[in-house]
Amino acid sequence: MLTRAGARGRFPACAPAACLLEDFRAIAYNNPLSTRAIAPILKGNGMAKAPQTAITPTRAEDYPEWYQQVVRAADLAETSAVRGCMVIKPWGYAIWENMQRVLDQMFKDTGHVNAYFPLFIPLSYLEKEAQHVEGFAKECAVVTHHRLEAGPDGKLVPTGKLDEPLVVRPTSETIIGATYAKWVQSYRDLPILINQWANVVRWELRTRLFLRTTEFLWQEGHTAHATRAEAEEETLKMLNVYATFAQDTMAMPVIRGEKTAGERFPGAVNTYSIEAMMQDRKALQAGTSHFLGQNFSKAQEIKFHSAEGREEFAWTTSWGVSTRLIGALIMTHSDDDGLILPPKLAPQQVVILPITRNDEERGPVLEYCNQLKKELAGARYDDAPVRVTIDDRDVPRADKKWQHVKRGVPFIVEIGPRDIAGDTIMPKRRDQSSGEKKPAVSRVEFIAKVGAELAEMQKSMFERALAQRAANTRTIARLEDFEAFFTSKNAENPEIHGGFANCHFVEGPATQEILNKYKVTIRCVPLSDEPGFEETVPGKCIFTGESTTQRGVFAKAY
Amino acid sequence: MLTRAGARGRFPACAPAACLLEDFRAIAYNNPLSTRAIAPILKGNGMAKAPQTAITPTRAEDYPEWYQQVVRAADLAETSAVRGCMVIKPWGYAIWENMQRVLDQMFKDTGHVNAYFPLFIPLSYLEKEAQHVEGFAKECAVVTHHRLEAGPDGKLVPTGKLDEPLVVRPTSETIIGATYAKWVQSYRDLPILINQWANVVRWELRTRLFLRTTEFLWQEGHTAHATRAEAEEETLKMLNVYATFAQDTMAMPVIRGEKTAGERFPGAVNTYSIEAMMQDRKALQAGTSHFLGQNFSKAQEIKFHSAEGREEFAWTTSWGVSTRLIGALIMTHSDDDGLILPPKLAPQQVVILPITRNDEERGPVLEYCNQLKKELAGARYDDAPVRVTIDDRDVPRADKKWQHVKRGVPFIVEIGPRDIAGDTIMPKRRDQSSGEKKPAVSRVEFIAKVGAELAEMQKSMFERALAQRAANTRTIARLEDFEAFFTSKNAENPEIHGGFANCHFVEGPATQEILNKYKVTIRCVPLSDEPGFEETVPGKCIFTGESTTQRGVFAKAY
Repeated sequence: MLTRAGARGRFPACAPAACLLEDFRAIAYNNPLSTRAIAPILKGNGMAKAPQTAITPTRAEDYPEWYQQVVRAADLAETSAVRGCMVIKPWGYAIWENMQRVLDQMFKDTGHVNAYFPLFIPLSYLEKEAQHVEGFAKECAVVTHHRLEAGPDGKLVPTGKLDEPLVVRPTSETIIGATYAKWVQSYRDLPILINQWANVVRWELRTRLFLRTTEFLWQEGHTAHATRAEAEEETLKMLNVYATFAQDTMAMPVIRGEKTAGERFPGAVNTYSIEAMMQDRKALQAGTSHFLGQNFSKAQEIKFHSAEGREEFAWTTSWGVSTRLIGALIMTHSDDDGLILPPKLAPQQVVILPITRNDEERGPVLEYCNQLKKELAGARYDDAPVRVTIDDRDVPRADKKWQHVKRGVPFIVEIGPRDIAGDTIMPKRRDQSSGEKKPAVSRVEFIAKVGAELAEMQKSMFERALAQRAANTRTIARLEDFEAFFTSKNAENPEIHGGFANCHFVEGPATQEILNKYKVTIRCVPLSDEPGFEETVPGKCIFTGESTTQRGVFAKAY
Repeated sequence: MLTRAGARGRFPACAPAACLLEDFRAIAYNNPLSTRAIAPILKGNGMAKAPQTAITPTRAEDYPEWYQQVVRAADLAETSAVRGCMVIKPWGYAIWENMQRVLDQMFKDTGHVNAYFPLFIPLSYLEKEAQHVEGFAKECAVVTHHRLEAGPDGKLVPTGKLDEPLVVRPTSETIIGATYAKWVQSYRDLPILINQWANVVRWELRTRLFLRTTEFLWQEGHTAHATRAEAEEETLKMLNVYATFAQDTMAMPVIRGEKTAGERFPGAVNTYSIEAMMQDRKALQAGTSHFLGQNFSKAQEIKFHSAEGREEFAWTTSWGVSTRLIGALIMTHSDDDGLILPPKLAPQQVVILPITRNDEERGPVLEYCNQLKKELAGARYDDAPVRVTIDDRDVPRADKKWQHVKRGVPFIVEIGPRDIAGDTIMPKRRDQSSGEKKPAVSRVEFIAKVGAELAEMQKSMFERALAQRAANTRTIARLEDFEAFFTSKNAENPEIHGGFANCHFVEGPATQEILNKYKVTIRCVPLSDEPGFEETVPGKCIFTGESTTQRGVFAKAY
């Protein structure tokens, strides 16, 4: 705990400990991995240790463990008794619902409709596309029996063996493709533009909440087209939908690009992805869009008569994002006090906490809070009423407040008799430390400004993330610089990685060998309209020296 | 096909065939099983056969097959290659989305939040509640392996055997209960009011689209409370939510009641249901709400410290409705031309069909249609803009129109040059035959009235269904009348059943034996605020003669 004795030197001795704590937090927020960096300053000021935070360990101390602790402290999810499967708790699920709502509207606005296909896939379906089954065979949950009966020892055992085992869908190209084959006869039946919201299962050996779980929730778009050009256009259109969603709704900058051959979806002709930089400078693939060519339509026989009367195979695409996005959200925005939610996705944008010392105060305070709630809910942000709630549970004041801090609520407003007397409000904005705290505002002013404030916070979170990415992105032309970028790290802090390296490269075994050595991956070849990649620049592959104009983004990755 | 030659006698000889057809349809709609009843009239008028309908067979000819044909003709769903699993097609899924939207808001308005729990349940969890596992063991899909590898013949076989088999959830009381046990320590942690939207699997031997499928979509509410009274209140509250939804949104009258011991959910103390009468007079259980007492909390150890410091077991409930509701919707409202959708659930409430004979007409007609669409979308119904679309696909006029008739769109509006010239519209309301067709209305009038028209249609559909139920419900006091009610049916028409019989009864083997004989089931003991059941009426069990005040609703059932 930070004591007054420690508050010497550049800090005024009279400042209360909590205030100093906020100052450190402000520094820490702006440089997510700076706690250790400021430790010597603290020491020089006679401070024995770093300030206490709501989350232990801090990001600087142990990023992966910090992540797990934020998931827990923000009530987002927890592990279940079933290996690798998570329970998504109400607060985490409400974020997912908000993501679903926005994405679903974007899909519908681009002409898609929803449908639902079976959870189970016959083994024979999966086998039809050789690359596809090879990619998923090692992680399939397989249903082999359809009933349970008491065995000799009274314990239940599976009985009723199935003639053909069923795979719990790891993705639905094969079962959906088989259905499309029945639906499509003529070019008039195309395009088919369908999305499905579903659960999928991939038996992962190492799981981490949201980032990699055995069962996860996602959406998978599956479209079929009469021409190659249309299918390619669809693939990129949906990649752009994902990028827009990531940037506008999640406040998370992403790079859109094409995956190299080694990183393609099993069975795809081209895979495109959006790649985001997390606070530890690792990359996270946040969404993918696949041009499947005629691979699946040939395997599943999706054939049609063209306008010219020829029998042709359809061209298909698939695209998906999953609950992994919640992991991306956490690692883009949160701090050592927990989650920070972009206002567009926050299940509650303002939480009002009534502060009363006795029953006498309770009535008038609650009345004021209810009135304030009503007025705030009358304000609008993001084409909807501001989402506001009162938390008047019988829980100690500090616990209650910290719970909402850890959960990332954009604005926390405490209301006590003194605030009511002045008819003023001291809103605490979650992405600003109290060090940046603005003076109290009148109730009327806050209500008038709350929409704009939320918009400003959304914008500011995006800009901060963008600045963080820019600060940790390098254009690198020599292998030794590449090596240095990914190895010259703080020995105390093995979780700090170089960041994003933009390099000329040629794919191949020699390139791959070097990448393996540094545990670095090629994230994507950015699209030609990505900032910094608009022009064709001749150069040499930094791994092999071959001449090439191809540039990629390299990073360690989740 | 009905010909002019047949249009004699009471029908004016000059009436076009289509008009007569509509007249017959009007009769048929009002009495869903009347086609055969009017056949002699047709014959007497020199008509050789019943009028052609969009759905073959008609309801009167073969109700179960008619049902399957409506599901198909309305593009709602189809069977898949996976035994008992269905593909829910976009139009069917859009109806489910509308159901979800309304129900989800009702759940939230009653204080519930959504969350998500694992698809898989360890076998050991299921075994903890003896009655529960007994109820579900015979229909469990069991995952036994977690990977696939090529066998000696190159074919894939399941490998990676699991130490403990996993059951694909048939319902989630056990896995959710185990989680609640971790969340609940003190009375302050209660109540927990959570709902989950999910897929579940029950390995059914005989499946029928929507009504009984191996995999289905549903919501399952799971709540935990500190007191018995609170849990009982919750159970009835959610039953009432379901009844309100069925009646207000689905336009489907239901009876709320308690299930008898033999019909309870496995592991429940009390099960309540809403029961609806289908057009063939069979009952369909459309939703259930269970008071689970402390059975599951004892099995799963959901314990808490009460305000008085005692350790107590929580009281739990669960409640659910599923995609079965779509089956109920079809069998409550549809006719021999296909689906009829209550406006509140119709994915499109108005479909505009541009009618053009040549390219010259196309421009102005489309322009008029677009303007009309915009104006209609500016009108409101059910607190939302009217859902309107233009179908200008290159499909023959009649085919296109019938497609929307079969899909149950509330209003179909054909727009051709003549309509534009008069600036008038001839809206075809799906639940009214053309026999009842109103004169053309001005465009302006239709736009002004469309919301009220949709509301009137919603109300009218409910009233028609209510009248159908009333006409086929009897209070029966003697066993011979009961027997006659369920056996005296048209020999030509084995699908016509008696309907609902309200009788005094006492549960027991003797009662059950008679019910089995007639394949009749006790649907429920109606709540004391159900119309007709408000008063305690002494009587005698019609099966055993015992004195009792208990009255039940009896019917053949889905």
